Amino acid sequence: MPGKVYLVGAGPGAADLLTLRAARLLDAADVVLYDALVAAETLTLARRAELLPVGKRAGLRSTAQQLINQHLIEAAQKHSLVVRLKGGDPMMFGRAQEEIAALDAAGIAWEVVPGVTAALGASAALGISLTRRGIARSVCFVTPRIGPEERDSEWLKAAIASDTAVLYMAGDQATQVCAALAAAGMPLARPAALVVSAATADQQVFFTTLEGLPDTIRRRHSGPALVLLGEVYGDALAAALQGADVPGAANPAQPG
Amino acid sequence: MPGKVYLVGAGPGAADLLTLRAARLLDAADVVLYDALVAAETLTLARRAELLPVGKRAGLRSTAQQLINQHLIEAAQKHSLVVRLKGGDPMMFGRAQEEIAALDAAGIAWEVVPGVTAALGASAALGISLTRRGIARSVCFVTPRIGPEERDSEWLKAAIASDTAVLYMAGDQATQVCAALAAAGMPLARPAALVVSAATADQQVFFTTLEGLPDTIRRRHSGPALVLLGEVYGDALAAALQGADVPGAANPAQPG
Repeated sequence: MPGKVYLVGAGPGAADLLTLRAARLLDAADVVLYDALVAAETLTLARRAELLPVGKRAGLRSTAQQLINQHLIEAAQKHSLVVRLKGGDPMMFGRAQEEIAALDAAGIAWEVVPGVTAALGASAALGISLTRRGIARSVCFVTPRIGPEERDSEWLKAAIASDTAVLYMAGDQATQVCAALAAAGMPLARPAALVVSAATADQQVFFTTLEGLPDTIRRRHSGPALVLLGEVYGDALAAALQGADVPGAANPAQPG
Repeated sequence: MPGKVYLVGAGPGAADLLTLRAARLLDAADVVLYDALVAAETLTLARRAELLPVGKRAGLRSTAQQLINQHLIEAAQKHSLVVRLKGGDPMMFGRAQEEIAALDAAGIAWEVVPGVTAALGASAALGISLTRRGIARSVCFVTPRIGPEERDSEWLKAAIASDTAVLYMAGDQATQVCAALAAAGMPLARPAALVVSAATADQQVFFTTLEGLPDTIRRRHSGPALVLLGEVYGDALAAALQGADVPGAANPAQPG
């Protein structure tokens, strides 16, 4: 009788931005397979589990995903409570569907536990809502990629049509991505926020425009970069240009 | 010396889908101002706080929001730890920016604690990812409204351009909203999921198409309705039409 696999969102960074359900599952887990984006502090919640890093970098071939699927199935055949811990939320840009399909094919039970996705962690740190009455009633999350095999125009259309656009994993191809957005009609002056290592002690925040984004992304320290574009960032950009205190520019205070 | 206000996401429904940080703040809070969408079970985590319901229904005039702002300021003038608890995540469709502006104007410190937004709670319950390699790399969250004063075409463009579109608070005007999507070019056969009272004991899940949505929404029991549209729901719809077991159609099992 194989065990059960919980696909669990680790949240945007800080260990206390995990859900109570996720924390209880980590505490009880026999084995935890975790992504590169999961913070070391979060893993300490899995007190008695065997910890298996299965992080892969975007761009690797699908054999890497097949290997992860195989690890998951083997773990469930040996243990009763397996946690597959993914950065942010499992149902957003996490390739969870491929893991679920593999588990179904192997006859292994699974359940998904949602998490706080990076865009929400970053927005909380910024103190700037993704939507605002009269300015923004649509928000789009995309993973932009430039390449001959990609359906470029599709993610571009979505980013252009939405009042607020959030680009996940945009760091690698920042210059090409920003050029493609501008060519598709996004104004170069569109306000933008760049949040690096959101909701961690290393968090950095920059306000700029679409035009200034590639340089800003190059100037950041290393770390996963989230790009947010929209008029909702206009006030913070204006304040930053005036040298005023910018909300969220420092690390967010820890409550309590 | 006034207290501090924490704008806290209550998550999609179940009390254990709150973050650890939110739970700690509720435990320590002097007063909690909460929305209509927050579950009673979640409020029990605020053991010693005064509980103030400030729920308003969509469509009420802005005076209601001004009253909430005033309640928040008064609470912070009397207490040291004030929690403003909002359904889902505070930075998504929550009018948090208006409350933040009022707190800033009154010189009251604030901080945002993110939460699991309804779309992620619903996707976990469905077991269907919002994005999928080769099918969906953009997802859009919108609050559709039909009315002379609305920028109709803007949210419609975003919903049409995105691979997956999630409609928040779509229940009231379902027929008009679906007609507008079809008129704007969304195929009537586009697969759709309707999740009512996501991540609660009363959760209901339906799979249908854009064409079948208005009837499906009318047939649901009462409760907040989330609509998800996109090819990622095609497999589940096909299985539902064949009478097969539909993932997430029952209430999700509680872990542990």
